Formats: sequence, structure tokens, C-alpha cells
Amino acid sequence: YGKNTIKFLRLHKEGKKHFVKEVEVCTHLRLISAQEYLEGNNSLVIPTDTMKNIVLVLAKKNGIPTIEQFAIDICKHFMTTFGQVAYVKTYVQEVPWQRLHENGIPHIHSFICVPDGIRFCEAEQCRNGPLVVFAGIKDLKLMKTTQSGFEGFYKNEHTTLPERHDRILCGELFCKWSYGECRDFDFDCIWNKIRECILEAFSGPPDCGEYSPSYQKTVNSIQMNVLSKVSQVQVIEAILNNTFYNVVDMKNLGVTNDKEVLVPVETPYGSCACTLGRK
Amino acid sequence: YGKNTIKFLRLHKEGKKHFVKEVEVCTHLRLISAQEYLEGNNSLVIPTDTMKNIVLVLAKKNGIPTIEQFAIDICKHFMTTFGQVAYVKTYVQEVPWQRLHENGIPHIHSFICVPDGIRFCEAEQCRNGPLVVFAGIKDLKLMKTTQSGFEGFYKNEHTTLPERHDRILCGELFCKWSYGECRDFDFDCIWNKIRECILEAFSGPPDCGEYSPSYQKTVNSIQMNVLSKVSQVQVIEAILNNTFYNVVDMKNLGVTNDKEVLVPVETPYGSCACTLGRK
Amino acid sequence: YGKNTIKFLRLHKEGKKHFVKEVEVCTHLRLISAQEYLEGNNSLVIPTDTMKNIVLVLAKKNGIPTIEQFAIDICKHFMTTFGQVAYVKTYVQEVPWQRLHENGIPHIHSFICVPDGIRFCEAEQCRNGPLVVFAGIKDLKLMKTTQSGFEGFYKNEHTTLPERHDRILCGELFCKWSYGECRDFDFDCIWNKIRECILEAFSGPPDCGEYSPSYQKTVNSIQMNVLSKVSQVQVIEAILNNTFYNVVDMKNLGVTNDKEVLVPVETPYGSCACTLGRK
Amino acid sequence: YGKNTIKFLRLHKEGKKHFVKEVEVCTHLRLISAQEYLEGNNSLVIPTDTMKNIVLVLAKKNGIPTIEQFAIDICKHFMTTFGQVAYVKTYVQEVPWQRLHENGIPHIHSFICVPDGIRFCEAEQCRNGPLVVFAGIKDLKLMKTTQSGFEGFYKNEHTTLPERHDRILCGELFCKWSYGECRDFDFDCIWNKIRECILEAFSGPPDCGEYSPSYQKTVNSIQMNVLSKVSQVQVIEAILNNTFYNVVDMKNLGVTNDKEVLVPVETPYGSCACTLGRK
Repeated sequence: YGKNTIKFLRLHKEGKKHFVKEVEVCTHLRLISAQEYLEGNNSLVIPTDTMKNIVLVLAKKNGIPTIEQFAIDICKHFMTTFGQVAYVKTYVQEVPWQRLHENGIPHIHSFICVPDGIRFCEAEQCRNGPLVVFAGIKDLKLMKTTQSGFEGFYKNEHTTLPERHDRILCGELFCKWSYGECRDFDFDCIWNKIRECILEAFSGPPDCGEYSPSYQKTVNSIQMNVLSKVSQVQVIEAILNNTFYNVVDMKNLGVTNDKEVLVPVETPYGSCACTLGRK
Repeated sequence: YGKNTIKFLRLHKEGKKHFVKEVEVCTHLRLISAQEYLEGNNSLVIPTDTMKNIVLVLAKKNGIPTIEQFAIDICKHFMTTFGQVAYVKTYVQEVPWQRLHENGIPHIHSFICVPDGIRFCEAEQCRNGPLVVFAGIKDLKLMKTTQSGFEGFYKNEHTTLPERHDRILCGELFCKWSYGECRDFDFDCIWNKIRECILEAFSGPPDCGEYSPSYQKTVNSIQMNVLSKVSQVQVIEAILNNTFYNVVDMKNLGVTNDKEVLVPVETPYGSCACTLGRK
Repeated sequence: YGKNTIKFLRLHKEGKKHFVKEVEVCTHLRLISAQEYLEGNNSLVIPTDTMKNIVLVLAKKNGIPTIEQFAIDICKHFMTTFGQVAYVKTYVQEVPWQRLHENGIPHIHSFICVPDGIRFCEAEQCRNGPLVVFAGIKDLKLMKTTQSGFEGFYKNEHTTLPERHDRILCGELFCKWSYGECRDFDFDCIWNKIRECILEAFSGPPDCGEYSPSYQKTVNSIQMNVLSKVSQVQVIEAILNNTFYNVVDMKNLGVTNDKEVLVPVETPYGSCACTLGRK
Repeated sequence: YGKNTIKFLRLHKEGKKHFVKEVEVCTHLRLISAQEYLEGNNSLVIPTDTMKNIVLVLAKKNGIPTIEQFAIDICKHFMTTFGQVAYVKTYVQEVPWQRLHENGIPHIHSFICVPDGIRFCEAEQCRNGPLVVFAGIKDLKLMKTTQSGFEGFYKNEHTTLPERHDRILCGELFCKWSYGECRDFDFDCIWNKIRECILEAFSGPPDCGEYSPSYQKTVNSIQMNVLSKVSQVQVIEAILNNTFYNVVDMKNLGVTNDKEVLVPVETPYGSCACTLGRK
């Protein structure tokens, strides 16, 4: 296959108010023939330069109402324009520009980058197959300072980990879900609702939280919460890259440390992942 | 000199509510003698392992009310405890954990990482000299989509840049300022006020903005605004790493592009810097 | 599944001569049940801390004769020791330490890091299935300054790329191949031979090179050369991330530039990939 | 000041043989006036775009015989062409492309990137001052697996580090030296000699090494060796970023570990630095 990545800015004005979308678009193509690999015959090859031009022209003509709609537009364009394309996949990721506010008043043309979780999506299609749409969030760093433990695990002669019922739970979350075959969704609204479901399931109620017996169970709670509250989601994959924190032993320094000072453990680090769908 | 970097978490509870500070602390020491370099005599050397222990013990005993106060504590400890230290500098940088909210209600123990500008500080002292304190913000990415130009610059046979009066102004800002000799400041309050001054000077009024004739002038406006509104700041340094955006020429593609689609120019990139103090 | 990554050093002496292997080992496990996700029942979970201990103990006991053999040892250990493991995959990557030489004499205990292509391998096994072994090279940056072009490609109204018959071919290569079911191979010798085949196919004869009509054909030539000369390889995957270089247009600067000064084009960048097996 | 960074490739042919230099050039300028900052008056400002053009034109016209000569050319050009320049500094760093060899035969146009220490240089000049030249090496990762210890250091109640006489010494070295006022040197030859001096002083004799009582002493030995063997060097600065390795305690796992398995300690990490000149 061939792949092309392009990063660009799409500006849009309504009266004096400016709107900005900066995106990174990566398009994969697989052709019906591999003659360019096998024979050095380039006659069906769509150069990455042409792929770039198409993405930019579509952005100019259609705008980027949502990144999902833009990914759909790109897929459709390649599939309908080029008979030699057997498969197309488009990944779009958004730079998290947010409008600046001064004393609560939104600024008409100034923005700040706030990367608290990156929104992305994918659209893909095989020739004669349906166009399916995925969306997701990545690089979302979360921490619970209590209500987390890990007990009752399998033990043998290589086990040195003690059981703990009050540890830090910290990690970087990646979630990707499928909307199934492309339909007319309000992608912004759904995405925001899913982000809320993720944070809610991770944290538990604001006044007391909810005990997590493992990273695995937290991953599952997030998936279950999204599936139960957002009917448009068909399957959801979640990966949690854990950062462990050890309570520093200060006995030799003549100080007691009651889970007040902790250091992150860089290696080993772990991650757990699960994919969950509807019955 | 010797340098040591340590990253750790300081937890603190008030009733059931948790507070978290995760910091990276880097301490530099210069000794009154260089005999460990010249003669391999280690008798005055303070191992980085000991430096680490001291930082952790101070965090446990004093907490981290503000990163500035913590940096001051560390400097004072090294200068008063070790007669062989000629100079000490402590840099502290904060991981931007923010409390999570659910429907406006703050969560008692859950946090999200929101890196929209990293807060840092420095304290330094020479033996028999004053302890001076610096603070700053870095990795603050800002964009204005209009009200920016660059005209009337010096031209010769190597000039190819056209004059522009409506370009994108985008960059990553680094600001560092001096509070002078250590005094009893409300460091959190001042830092937040300075951050507001920076955003205000970058953006201009929310309803119309303010024209910037160059990156240099914007840097200067930021510095002037901080110096005029925050009396505790004595000197302020600012560096703006520019990202240029070029309007894509779509004439060959049969499309007009009226500053709607732009691509970032990765090289050359530039930056401009200035240090400004009071008379 | 669960994943654990650990980085460590294995030292080994023969008389006064030291040998060093620094590796990063990542082990994936999938269990026969998902009860830890669904029910929070941890009784079958093998903690990442235990996984780390096992890897370190195996390194101590068996040494790391080759990274392939070490990956095989780890897989076998997990599959035979833990009845609850349904699938195990171990990835091992080597830090490229090379022995230092002084005037041609090898040093007995000093090393330099030379990252001109990183060696890695994978071993994987499903319960009741065969143990299969893969190896590869990554981050291998290569350049041909001539004998490369791109012509005769598909054209339409979005094509702006000119045909070129003398461009720079530069990219970062990733190759991964399968040795099939685990057998008693001399993994070091085979890996070095494959690396030579890759460089040979990329470059062509040293006195004149060989013309490449596209990145795709170069990828294919590399695969064909490996498959034809190394019988142990069953399937080979190759990905070439291209860096394009544009000849700088200096006409406006009054200078002619005959492919002497070129700038890398950061976006769009492309890549092409192919997987090739034996009939 | 203003700063501009540009990365490009300079190709050069002798008969059929190709030579390639890929460099990153960063030029700093300070003007005699700050009116662009204070008043928004751009009339003396040299745009980064013009700076880029000048660097590329000089590369085309003069070639890059050595990066030092190229940095000197750039400095001289800015100082003599622009009366408004008060200070210019040019930093040049080389991408470590090496000619490929097949069975010992050098290839006429194929190269591989081998980053075992990056070569860089700097030239700087104030108006009416001398042009001074610096060179250096960075990102040079070295390891000694024995002949290193750390004993007899300062101890107090915060000391937990044990004394060790057989530890791993591993680090990333940065060295920068001054050639003083610009003269007619063979920069390639001198740089290669200095690199050898660094490796020699780090390692000691190939058959037995030389004991290092501390990172500090190793830094000093490197500097002393360079100063004593390379008369053109006037001052040399060296920074060694240490990576510590801890012997894994395997007692609880029923295994003895005699410095055979070690893990890198990511934090705290330290570094030591020293600048040494001639009397």
C-alpha cells in the first residue's frame, strides 16, 4: 500500500468571527494491482503529491465541519474517482486549538492549544464494501490518587508484588470506537458525550469515587459506560498505559512516609487493553 | 558542577479531599573546590543520590505549597547545610494536573493532565549572595488568525519574502521573569495574573484584537504589559518560536484560496527573543 | 491482554573480556478467561511485576546468546508454567552497543552506541499452536543521491508532480521477516546476511548503482533479494518511510542550481509497504 | 535577537563519485537597534526568509568543504553585508551520512546514517571584534562495564548510597572546544583526532582499561587528554549525562546476581560538567 500524511490549517469566517481547524490527515491506498512493486510499472500509481492536492482541495471546497465528515468525504472521493483503488483508509487527527477568553468573553480570532486528549477518527472502505467510521481519543492522561488497589492476583515463586488496597491509579488512555456503517450522526455531540462517559467511569461519583480493583476493571467500566449510554457506538477498544508510583521508603532517612511522597516507576511499565462490543 | 533531576508526586489531604503536585526538580551545585575533577578526591562531593534524598525529605516535611517556595527551601537547605557549596540553583517544573469536574462539581481525588503552558521556577544563590527567585511559563502555544502582518523590512538582492498585512501569527511562547531577592509573595496569585497579562497582550481586545506589525513587537507588547501591571516583576525575558503558515497556491488546481487553506512551514523556522527590565 | 516492558543490561565475561547486551523486552499475554475485566476477579492475573521478574531471572540463568533465542525462552516459559495463558508474544529489541577499538585493537570492556539500524525479534505462540519466530531491522536510514526517478504515473486534474528521472531517494527502512516454526538457526549469522542483502539491493553495484523507477520497486527489490539468498526467510514485510528532497529554485536569487542544494520536504511525507512470501 | 534554522542537503560530484553533506544551520543575529521591538519599525529587520536564502546561496557558491569553514563564511557574509548587524553567531550540525561499502568497495552514490556522535561547530563575531570558532561532538553514548567506582564521598544523615568500586560507567557525552580566533586549520583532521582522544581517555588502554574514581575524574581526563595532544584547542567544555545501572537484587527470587543483570535507573539522573583551559 501507499500512505501519505499532510498537516494543514482550515480557516473559516462567520462575519468577523474566525474558526480554525488544524488537522493531520493520513491516507492509505491499496491498488487492485501490485505491478508497480513487481514490475516497476507506475501507470496506476497515484503519487502522494496528488493525494495531498486532493485532500487540500476537498478541505477548501467542503470545509471541515467535523473531522469525521472530512474523513468520509476523502474516502468517497478516492473510491469514486479512481477505479484502480481497492481499499482506502483515512485517518484524521485534530490539533486541540481552543478559543481564548478574556474575562469570560470569547475572542474573535485568538486561540490556545490545550492538549487534554486528542480527538481522531478513521473512515475506511473496500471496493464494493460499506464505508465504516471510527472515532476516538488518545493521549488522555488521568490520575486517581485513591480508591484503587490490586489484590488476590495469581502468585508463584516469581511473585514479589505485595497486595495493595490504596494505590495511585495513573495512566494514558487510548479509546477507539466504531459507529458502524456511515450514517448521518452529530459527530461533535456524540464525541463530547463519550468523553464525559469515559471521565465519569474512570473517576466515579465526585464526592466519593468508586473503588477500582485493577486497571483491567477500570478499562472495562469505561467501555461498559460508553456502550450503555451512547447507542451509536457498536464496538469500543480501550488501552490504558499504566504509570506506576511507588511510595518512597524513608525509614533509613528517619522519616515516616504515609503515601505522601511517591516516585513514578519508568520501567517496567505495563498496559492493558480490551475490545468490547454489543451482543 | 553537578546536576541531579528527580521527578515525583506529593500527595496531600484535607479531610477527604486530595491535592496533588507532581514536579520535576533539577538541582545544580558548584563546590568551592574542583579537587574531584583534578585529583579524583571525592571527599567533598555530595552524591546525586544524596541530593535526591534531600529533595524528597524536604517535600515530605514542608510539602509543596508553591513550586517557588519549594525551590527556595531546597536552595536554603543546601547553602546552610553544606559548607563546601559555592553556588546552588534549583529548577522546579510542574506537571499540569487539574482537578476533574463532573457537571460542575469538583472531584475529590481525580485529576486530568492539561498541558496548556507549563509553570516553572528557579531559585539560585551564591555563597554570601542573595537568594534570587525566577518564575516562568513555557510550551504555551498560541495563534492569531488575523491582525498580524510584516511590512517595511530591510530588502536586498536576497529578499524573496513578500510584504503581508494579513498573515497567521502562531508560535510557542517561553517567558521567564525575575522577582529579584526572595520575599514573601503570593506566588500562585502573581503567576496567574502574569499568565493573563500574556494572553491579553498577545490577543488584544476580544471583539477586535490589536494589529501586530511583527513577532518582535508582539514579544515586546507582552513584556510591557506584564511590567506595567505586575509590580513584583523586575525583568522579563520572552522567546517566541514562530510557526509560519503559507497560503496554499491552488491556481494550478483550478481553485481560488483566499487564506482558507494553509500549510505550516517546518523549515526554516525562526524565533525572536528579548529581555526587558525596568529603568 | 496485558503488556509489560522492561529494559535491562546483561553482562557476561570470558576471562577478562566483557560482553554486553542491553535489551528492551516487551511481553504480551492473553488469558483463557476475561474475568478480571468483566468481574474484577484477579485470581488468574499474572502481575506485570511478576512478568518482569521472570524475564530478569531467565536472563540471569540462560544469558542472552541471541535476542531470538531469548524471546523463544521467554515464550516457552510462560506457556509451560502458566495454564491460564492462551497466547504469548515476546518482542525483544537490542541497544546497538559496539565494542570500541583503539588502533584496531578491540577494547576488553568499553563500548560505543552505534544506532545504524536497530535489531529486533518476536516470538509468539498460541496454546496448542507452534512457536513462530520473526526478526527484523528498523530505523535504518539510507540515501541514494542518484539512480532514482519516478515517471509514467497516473495523472488527472489534481496532478502537479513533474516526472523526474534523477531525484534523491532517501528513507527510513523497516523490515520484518518470518523464520516460521522455531528451529535451530544461527540467528546472528542469518541476520547479518539479511542486512547485507538489504543494503545491496538498495544500492546496486558499488561502481554504478542500479536505477530505481519508484520507492515501491526498491522495496520489492529488497524483498526479492532477501528471499532469493536467505532460504530460512519465509515471508518478508518492508516499509519505507520516504523523505523527499526538493531542488531549491534559485532563479530569483540569480543563481543556477543543478541539483546541488536541496531541502527536505517535511509534509507531505509518504511511505510504501509490501509483504512478500514464497510461492 | 532573531534566530533562523534551516536544514538542507549539499550534493557535490567528482567525476561519477557523489559526495553529500546534510546540515542544520542556525543563525542568530542581534541588531544595533531594538526599534522593531520597541516601536514596531521593521526597516532594519532582516527577515528569516532572507537569512535562509543567504545560507542556501552560500552553500551553492562555496560548497561545504567543512562545517567550520561554512559557519565562518556565513558569519563573514552577514557582518560585511549588513551594517545594522551588531552580533552574529552561526551554529552548524551535520547529519552523519557515511558512504556505504560492499565487500570493502566504497559505493559511488549510496549512504547510510550512522549517528555515533554528532559533529557540530559554531562561529561568532561582534562588530569590531574577532571571529572565533568552536567545534564539538554531542550525543556520543559510551559505556565501560568495569574499571569504575565511586568511594570516599561526603556523607551525612541523608546519605544512602553505598560505596562501590566496580560499577558500570555509562553516559552521553557533550564536548565543545574553542579554536580561538579563526585561522587556517585542517578542521576535519583535528576533529577526528579529538574524537580519538576522547574515546582513548574514556576507555583507557584496550587490554586493561584505566580505573575511574568518578564521572568527574573521567570528564577531566578527557579534557586533559585533548588539551595535551591537540595544540589548536584553547578551551574545552565537557558534560557527561550519567545513566546509572543498579544490580538487580534477586535474593527473594532465589538467585544470586553477581553484577550480571542490571537495570537502568531513569530518575534521578545526574550530569557533571567542567570547562578547562590552558594556563
